[in-house]
Amino acid sequence: MSVVALRPAEYRAPVFDLKQVVTELAGVRQRWRESQRRSTEPGGRELPSREALAHIIDSLRGVLFPMRLGPADLRQESEDFYVGHTLDSVLHALLVQVRLELQYAVRHQPYQDALGIDTDAVKLVHDFSRELPSIRGLLDADVLAAFEGDPAARSVDEVLLCYPGILAMIHHRLAHHLYVLGVPLLARIVAELAHGQTGIDIHPGASIGAGLFIDHGTGVVIGETAIIGQRVRIYQAVTLGAKSFPVDESGKPLKGQPRHPIVEDEVVIYAGATVLGRVTIGRRASIGGNVWVTHDVAAGAHITQARSQHDAVGG
Amino acid sequence: MSVVALRPAEYRAPVFDLKQVVTELAGVRQRWRESQRRSTEPGGRELPSREALAHIIDSLRGVLFPMRLGPADLRQESEDFYVGHTLDSVLHALLVQVRLELQYAVRHQPYQDALGIDTDAVKLVHDFSRELPSIRGLLDADVLAAFEGDPAARSVDEVLLCYPGILAMIHHRLAHHLYVLGVPLLARIVAELAHGQTGIDIHPGASIGAGLFIDHGTGVVIGETAIIGQRVRIYQAVTLGAKSFPVDESGKPLKGQPRHPIVEDEVVIYAGATVLGRVTIGRRASIGGNVWVTHDVAAGAHITQARSQHDAVGG
Amino acid sequence: MSVVALRPAEYRAPVFDLKQVVTELAGVRQRWRESQRRSTEPGGRELPSREALAHIIDSLRGVLFPMRLGPADLRQESEDFYVGHTLDSVLHALLVQVRLELQYAVRHQPYQDALGIDTDAVKLVHDFSRELPSIRGLLDADVLAAFEGDPAARSVDEVLLCYPGILAMIHHRLAHHLYVLGVPLLARIVAELAHGQTGIDIHPGASIGAGLFIDHGTGVVIGETAIIGQRVRIYQAVTLGAKSFPVDESGKPLKGQPRHPIVEDEVVIYAGATVLGRVTIGRRASIGGNVWVTHDVAAGAHITQARSQHDAVGG
Amino acid sequence: MSVVALRPAEYRAPVFDLKQVVTELAGVRQRWRESQRRSTEPGGRELPSREALAHIIDSLRGVLFPMRLGPADLRQESEDFYVGHTLDSVLHALLVQVRLELQYAVRHQPYQDALGIDTDAVKLVHDFSRELPSIRGLLDADVLAAFEGDPAARSVDEVLLCYPGILAMIHHRLAHHLYVLGVPLLARIVAELAHGQTGIDIHPGASIGAGLFIDHGTGVVIGETAIIGQRVRIYQAVTLGAKSFPVDESGKPLKGQPRHPIVEDEVVIYAGATVLGRVTIGRRASIGGNVWVTHDVAAGAHITQARSQHDAVGG
Amino acid sequence: MSVVALRPAEYRAPVFDLKQVVTELAGVRQRWRESQRRSTEPGGRELPSREALAHIIDSLRGVLFPMRLGPADLRQESEDFYVGHTLDSVLHALLVQVRLELQYAVRHQPYQDALGIDTDAVKLVHDFSRELPSIRGLLDADVLAAFEGDPAARSVDEVLLCYPGILAMIHHRLAHHLYVLGVPLLARIVAELAHGQTGIDIHPGASIGAGLFIDHGTGVVIGETAIIGQRVRIYQAVTLGAKSFPVDESGKPLKGQPRHPIVEDEVVIYAGATVLGRVTIGRRASIGGNVWVTHDVAAGAHITQARSQHDAVGG
Amino acid sequence: MSVVALRPAEYRAPVFDLKQVVTELAGVRQRWRESQRRSTEPGGRELPSREALAHIIDSLRGVLFPMRLGPADLRQESEDFYVGHTLDSVLHALLVQVRLELQYAVRHQPYQDALGIDTDAVKLVHDFSRELPSIRGLLDADVLAAFEGDPAARSVDEVLLCYPGILAMIHHRLAHHLYVLGVPLLARIVAELAHGQTGIDIHPGASIGAGLFIDHGTGVVIGETAIIGQRVRIYQAVTLGAKSFPVDESGKPLKGQPRHPIVEDEVVIYAGATVLGRVTIGRRASIGGNVWVTHDVAAGAHITQARSQHDAVGG
Repeated sequence: MSVVALRPAEYRAPVFDLKQVVTELAGVRQRWRESQRRSTEPGGRELPSREALAHIIDSLRGVLFPMRLGPADLRQESEDFYVGHTLDSVLHALLVQVRLELQYAVRHQPYQDALGIDTDAVKLVHDFSRELPSIRGLLDADVLAAFEGDPAARSVDEVLLCYPGILAMIHHRLAHHLYVLGVPLLARIVAELAHGQTGIDIHPGASIGAGLFIDHGTGVVIGETAIIGQRVRIYQAVTLGAKSFPVDESGKPLKGQPRHPIVEDEVVIYAGATVLGRVTIGRRASIGGNVWVTHDVAAGAHITQARSQHDAVGG
Repeated sequence: MSVVALRPAEYRAPVFDLKQVVTELAGVRQRWRESQRRSTEPGGRELPSREALAHIIDSLRGVLFPMRLGPADLRQESEDFYVGHTLDSVLHALLVQVRLELQYAVRHQPYQDALGIDTDAVKLVHDFSRELPSIRGLLDADVLAAFEGDPAARSVDEVLLCYPGILAMIHHRLAHHLYVLGVPLLARIVAELAHGQTGIDIHPGASIGAGLFIDHGTGVVIGETAIIGQRVRIYQAVTLGAKSFPVDESGKPLKGQPRHPIVEDEVVIYAGATVLGRVTIGRRASIGGNVWVTHDVAAGAHITQARSQHDAVGG
Repeated sequence: MSVVALRPAEYRAPVFDLKQVVTELAGVRQRWRESQRRSTEPGGRELPSREALAHIIDSLRGVLFPMRLGPADLRQESEDFYVGHTLDSVLHALLVQVRLELQYAVRHQPYQDALGIDTDAVKLVHDFSRELPSIRGLLDADVLAAFEGDPAARSVDEVLLCYPGILAMIHHRLAHHLYVLGVPLLARIVAELAHGQTGIDIHPGASIGAGLFIDHGTGVVIGETAIIGQRVRIYQAVTLGAKSFPVDESGKPLKGQPRHPIVEDEVVIYAGATVLGRVTIGRRASIGGNVWVTHDVAAGAHITQARSQHDAVGG
Repeated sequence: MSVVALRPAEYRAPVFDLKQVVTELAGVRQRWRESQRRSTEPGGRELPSREALAHIIDSLRGVLFPMRLGPADLRQESEDFYVGHTLDSVLHALLVQVRLELQYAVRHQPYQDALGIDTDAVKLVHDFSRELPSIRGLLDADVLAAFEGDPAARSVDEVLLCYPGILAMIHHRLAHHLYVLGVPLLARIVAELAHGQTGIDIHPGASIGAGLFIDHGTGVVIGETAIIGQRVRIYQAVTLGAKSFPVDESGKPLKGQPRHPIVEDEVVIYAGATVLGRVTIGRRASIGGNVWVTHDVAAGAHITQARSQHDAVGG
Repeated sequence: MSVVALRPAEYRAPVFDLKQVVTELAGVRQRWRESQRRSTEPGGRELPSREALAHIIDSLRGVLFPMRLGPADLRQESEDFYVGHTLDSVLHALLVQVRLELQYAVRHQPYQDALGIDTDAVKLVHDFSRELPSIRGLLDADVLAAFEGDPAARSVDEVLLCYPGILAMIHHRLAHHLYVLGVPLLARIVAELAHGQTGIDIHPGASIGAGLFIDHGTGVVIGETAIIGQRVRIYQAVTLGAKSFPVDESGKPLKGQPRHPIVEDEVVIYAGATVLGRVTIGRRASIGGNVWVTHDVAAGAHITQARSQHDAVGG
Repeated sequence: MSVVALRPAEYRAPVFDLKQVVTELAGVRQRWRESQRRSTEPGGRELPSREALAHIIDSLRGVLFPMRLGPADLRQESEDFYVGHTLDSVLHALLVQVRLELQYAVRHQPYQDALGIDTDAVKLVHDFSRELPSIRGLLDADVLAAFEGDPAARSVDEVLLCYPGILAMIHHRLAHHLYVLGVPLLARIVAELAHGQTGIDIHPGASIGAGLFIDHGTGVVIGETAIIGQRVRIYQAVTLGAKSFPVDESGKPLKGQPRHPIVEDEVVIYAGATVLGRVTIGRRASIGGNVWVTHDVAAGAHITQARSQHDAVGG
């Protein structure tokens, strides 16, 4: 940090081979674009923005729970002004991202029906907005489920403010709706934002009933075609995964096939348990910690490992 | 992005049903408040702020380790000025959050002793501040334990700067003190901030001796009533959990009962092991990777799975 | 929040024992420095900065993938300007951090060859920059591997934008290069930045071939001396760890010994599997979910748990 | 910037006499407080904040002119949500500043009626808010006056966006209202914020009718007790000042005496003119450039300098 | 700040008449829109953004003078990368603002030729960009003129970094080009940004030759149709204004008529001088401090006030 | 903003001649560097940073007046911590800027004594810091002078917070000290920061005694070699300038010659007055508004314009 002597005549400022590296990087980009048959014509970014979606979700959290996740200086008597203003702003920001995904989806078509994309995007965002009240209702049920299911929980507000499982469900319920409406890439980005913050990886395609409580959550994986009923409880490191992939004639995995479990109402799955394939866990069944399940489980059954009869793992 | 034609007369700017959605969201909030018997009177936010606490903890990390986690331009000869100024600012910021939690705790009482809350909050923050030097001492022991326990560690400074287990312990030791002093919601927020960054979920109620080393850490869960001795070592995905919850007459979980393990001095618990219930792992015992424990383990014992005798898992 | 009465004469503003706490904190710092034989002379920060490296890696992500991870308003026809300008800025920022680590490494020597450190740092950053094109090439292979390996993936761009396994590999391939060039502390910070965001903990020392696909990823641990071939697939919670540490005469772990697995080309390791020690998993072998391996596995072999023959776990 | 040689043993990091300077600065502060009979007891800041007021005024500009000075992404159909939310936030922020000034005003009194201050502050902010619609009406008249008075103006929107005279009037009309309501320090800060940006110095005490147009504006000074009618036009560097101050027995200036001009409706005062003392410029009179006036001017009169008959100065 | 007593039952949080004020503000907006025949249909902002232009000009200053007004960490060997990247970004940002003004200009027409506006905007920005090198050349002449004209100037770099006259000329030369290309509102905003910072008010329509030196500058006003030659020197508070406005039949000022002075090469105008109307100040003439000129001045003449023969005012 | 039709095949994204403009800008930079004999070798920025100095001055304002211009949450009992920490940080930031100017001053010398520059810079900053207490003392006198001189001033705190004359004097007293210590470029930047905010242009070379009150201030110009005594009062638009420049044999202005007025103690100079050349305004003299002075004025004399006997201009 300190210069303590004569700077000699032969001293040279550090210089890097910028032009060489820039050229080589352009070359490797060019090879990628050719191999992926991408356009190399002038033009701007085609892809939605992770940062924009992070901001959108953050605002929607405030819209859904204004006095608890909204701005610190909000007052109850003026909630509606805040909700209306924020919603207006956030829906138009979402519209931009929806347009980007819809355009991206048809990027290989020679003519693009810009008017059609525009109309579709507006309708999609409109439909999304109309679902927000029912999403809030589902999330209220999730909060109550966590409060009732965790002896360490002191209040519903602590649950909403602190529990990573709730943060994951806020993201999931918004992401799932985007997925259903036809913007799976936006949905996936929203899901991964929660995965990064909580370690809970729920594919936006998963269908989840009211009152899901995910405790601790780190390492939970829920696959794309999983179906979960009401009032289900899941602990950390539980996997609801696929057993093997159906493949097409050329050996490539078939996309979109049902391949993850169906979990019926009021099931409890303890930490580290693994449930694989399109199996059904019947209503009120429980799956013990670290148990490995690849077949259907009857309603009301309690599955545990031989070594640890009667034990169940809660944090 | 480009406008390429006449804008026709029938063109309409996108308009969403803002008023309808705002009204419906107000309705669902109203139903929640009624069901939770919340006030619907005018007034501001009642809950502590996650962002404020994140800022407070960040400043306290600088106060505790000024030359390593403080500002980049700090110099050793002026550390005390920095520590004093930051501490002053951070204690008053904490005071605001403590007041919010204390007021929240009595929110259902018709009259609130504002003077009493004020006095309690000042005393609480004062007591918290007096404990900081001993917290720094405990954390120094944690850093040394990590340095000595990991063959990949090159220096104590690398440990402090990089290891998620240390970040989790800084948060825990501050959070635990807040928990003991009577602000469990603040404590929980502080703990979840670390959980989100490290995947290490330590309930602030857990009591932990000097020199805990958590390696890798992702998926570690330590429950509210766990007690951990000195110089303990824990690897990733270890659970110190509850076996089952004592319930009250109405079947609701009894809150605050001892239900998590006691881990004595110098125990080592390898990756993926699960210890459940109020059991005691005796001094210098070791628990092998993925092992499942629901009974006491004698001091000095080495528990492994049948399939993997003599193996232990370190990263 | 509201002052609603006379402020009585005896009212006192809250005052904390700032000077006392500052003095005690100085005392505990002093004890640490003495016990660690640290300098207590005047002077500035000696350690690299986590924030600076986070910014550097963020910029390098844009340099490597300008149209997808660079600024939202970038256009293809002017990529090279952006790449060149950002690279220039980021290499000089890296130079500052490299100097800090090289100086830190010789901090106990009475005379420091400032000219030598300067020359070494410039050469190191120069060498690092020349490797960027080949790092981009490796990452393109990783992206393709994820796209082909996951039935839920819809496009290579979704993979690059969303998949935590790709984020972890971008960090790892940059960190590994820093590790090889001789700045292991910087490398470790870069690795932990990814660990914090993804739950994937890859030591920068690990050597990894082209086309690694880590799915879901939370809880994956890959040790310092692990060697991974080409086109390998790894699921969440897989550990490639050490069995036991070789120790020196005084019982301290020997640092830098090969102690983690070798995983050959096209191996698949399913969720929760644990592979320990310097064992070799042969080409095209597969390791089933939750399996525990401490011995070599032959090429092409399929290892599963007795309880779950023929099953493999994918998310 | 570059270290190019051995750092010699005698090298010392730069150290400044921090403690000495800190102590001397404390001494000079102490002397000031004693000479001004200020409290030296513990306690926080007593004074309103310039930054807070800058933010408040900026928000009020958006409240008054939402589609032109509000956020870029606002839409006409949701203006009211924005206006309501911003107003709620800004009035509570203003309440904090008003309380600070009211408390400051009674800082020398032994007991402070906190409840009374609180009630007064709420009433003051309430009254302020009720005046906003009529302030907007006055400002609309100012904008029209500028548009009609300047041959270079192309639209009323250009005037609102660009003209420093309009910015000064927005500040003045808000500041004057604060002044009338009893918080002259806040008013003065608001006025100086405009002075700093425009070079137009209007004391918040000045009373100004609808439709004032100040062209160019730099150097304009309008004193505390000036009274200006409707549709007046003023050019750069005009002073409406005091001739001499009435003094009290001890020779100190008497505060609050009428000592600045009265300017009646539709007067025009050209650049650089100086009008001093409690004189009246009659309706429709005009004062030529650089003219010096210390006596009443009759309605309809045109005052010019001998050297420049019939000339008037416009920019 | 401190709550020191029981909060009594009758306490009420402060509530303002938000809905009333919002409604009244909507009413006054409605009246304005009707009187100005503005659209009250749904839709977004129609006007360019002052903040966007401030950012654009700031970037262009870096593009024009990269090593002196560009980023602090720029290096000479990589200037072109910075210039190219910044220019690309800034031209597209300018394109957005140009479109807004061109659309605004035709806002009253029933059909808008969106394709035509788009084409015009692209061409305009293209032409603007091609002029940047010659603008830099003119500004180099301005810098040299200031250095040579001010005995207090120590280097050309001090002039570029510090002199408000240079800042005003950078803004003016960019603004004038926008004015000539047909976006006078953008041009005016750029000019007012400089006016706010320097007190120098140059209308973007003014035509100014190379090497203008404005010393001190506060209070200088240069009108829309002024024409200034090469190497002219102007001191603070000089006005080049209009004497009177030509009016049309209805008495409204005719817009766009030549009404400001012509100042030929190498003229010097000292502080406070006022030159009014379409007069010509001949080559190498000088106008003394505070002098008032409304007629032509011959080349080489020296005009002073009687009271102050032979004196000239420099700062 | 809206895409409403098919995007036709012939559509092209807007593309500008980036490479052409970049090349031409490089050409004009090259010509400038050659004409100014500047280095075209690789290397970083040589000049101090306006932004860095703005930040430094802002921090020094807090150091000098902690409870009034420091952070809003500061408390009196912990002022010294704040002052010490901020001072430490700001002096090292200033050291960086001082080094840049000292290196710049010798940039044309073939060998640069880096050790010497370093030593000089440290000494200069040290000397600067030791003067801060006396600067605070002078500013306290300025504040009192303004409070006593302005009938509109309500408190000394209003003066410190609001009066542009005080802001200008804070900058000037710091800038003057930098000027005296040998870094005139830094000094000039500090002065221009105040000029931009207040319209008051005081050259840092000017020597000013305690208790100067500049009222309103816009347009005031005080030249480099001016000398002002104690308790002087100056109104807006006053110039203390040079009459003509002494030139050297080649006709270039001689730099550094005394050429501005000497103003003795307790002089008052009213608005718009102009004093030119090395004249002396004797103790307690007053100069009337708009008066033009180019000769000495005797102590106690009152100079006014013929047309306006006995009048003086105050705001």
